[in-house]
Amino acid sequence: MANAEEFIAGRNSVVEALKSGRAINKVLITKGEKNGAVIREIIGLARSQGLVLQEVDAGKLDSIAGGVRHQGVLALVPPVEYAEIEDILAAAKDSGEPPFVVLLDELEDPHNLGAILRTADAAGVHGVLIPRRRSCPLSGTVAKTSAGAVEYVPVARIGNIGQTIDQLKKQGMWIVGADMEGQADYYDADLTGPLVIVVGSEGQGLGRLVKERCDFLVKIPMRGKINSLNASVACSLLLYEVRKQREQKLK
Amino acid sequence: MANAEEFIAGRNSVVEALKSGRAINKVLITKGEKNGAVIREIIGLARSQGLVLQEVDAGKLDSIAGGVRHQGVLALVPPVEYAEIEDILAAAKDSGEPPFVVLLDELEDPHNLGAILRTADAAGVHGVLIPRRRSCPLSGTVAKTSAGAVEYVPVARIGNIGQTIDQLKKQGMWIVGADMEGQADYYDADLTGPLVIVVGSEGQGLGRLVKERCDFLVKIPMRGKINSLNASVACSLLLYEVRKQREQKLK
Repeated sequence: MANAEEFIAGRNSVVEALKSGRAINKVLITKGEKNGAVIREIIGLARSQGLVLQEVDAGKLDSIAGGVRHQGVLALVPPVEYAEIEDILAAAKDSGEPPFVVLLDELEDPHNLGAILRTADAAGVHGVLIPRRRSCPLSGTVAKTSAGAVEYVPVARIGNIGQTIDQLKKQGMWIVGADMEGQADYYDADLTGPLVIVVGSEGQGLGRLVKERCDFLVKIPMRGKINSLNASVACSLLLYEVRKQREQKLK
Repeated sequence: MANAEEFIAGRNSVVEALKSGRAINKVLITKGEKNGAVIREIIGLARSQGLVLQEVDAGKLDSIAGGVRHQGVLALVPPVEYAEIEDILAAAKDSGEPPFVVLLDELEDPHNLGAILRTADAAGVHGVLIPRRRSCPLSGTVAKTSAGAVEYVPVARIGNIGQTIDQLKKQGMWIVGADMEGQADYYDADLTGPLVIVVGSEGQGLGRLVKERCDFLVKIPMRGKINSLNASVACSLLLYEVRKQREQKLK
């Protein structure tokens, strides 16, 4: 039996998982849920891949999903495989674009991580780095919130964040931190080079040691009374600014 | 007794509510929670406003909060007061800036609404319009996720979305919809004029009738395999693009 983190829930997420070619142990569908175009697509994809397809009671799905919205479909999967940082840099090289990497410093909320992976896929990020300690792992909630992007964006776990930053700098990458003390507004900075965007935790922002290692800090201007944005929103603003600058440079 | 939606939970949200001058019936603090700078600030603010301050068992707070994270503090409040659309337009006029309004078409997730209000505050939005029907109301979860922004960003409920759009057009506003079929990338459109940004529901995007009423549609370019972003992320990208264009026009 898979543990609580080893499933993908929801129709669109399961379709994405089936299409991505990722390892799947078994697909579970609620009894009587065979109607609907997406369910039929799931059944077709699972059969064509020779996967075990099992009808179960709604109660059983609920208990495996543990509160995650499953829409009558779960795919049981081996734990998500993490990439290596070298794979991410190699993928960047193959893309012919300057590397575009995100480093999440102690991000804890799985919904934020999922939303960031979704934006990372859309913005053409080559990979995401998360510290092994005090960070949200790639869980079922992350996979679901990512709308399947967890299948496409390589995520590597790193040990010491300071050493990783130093290593990336040696390879010619610019380390740009998002911080309220940033010198420039994020849209006024040149973000077209080989880049690591560093975003901090929901509550605390970037740690001091990480901040000191950044080549420069950018801030998101805040016009209102609240002094911070949702972490996935803040990260997404930076990722799309990078995307836009790169597109416009090509024009 | 307040019903489940009539409280503000969590230390920072309660501080924001106390500072905003919004109506508060009572502040509840868990017994023994009097330490900590934020708790002391809450007690000080509540006393200075002559509010009833009550110590209760942790179990009682849990039962009122109904699963919302409260960190030992709840403010019981009258239901959130909605603004009128006329108030929002008047506030825009007073600001000396072209009106900057957001219209959310059937957004259903309270976390998305909360995150959008937080960004709306930061990006200098004058107000948010939500249809009365099939939309998420201003609940405790919205207030909490907004990090207090619900206190600062006027939200008006509207009846017929088509009529509202027509009315806003007559007042000289441009109606810009976010849609995958948009003619231009959002960052290539001129967003400096009097503006209503229209964003659709999480699952369906903009409805056909709403889309047809928009003056133009902008899209967020998607480079990856997933075909949509989290709704609050998508909305936030547009709001900050407006903010940026307005700032840069002033320079």
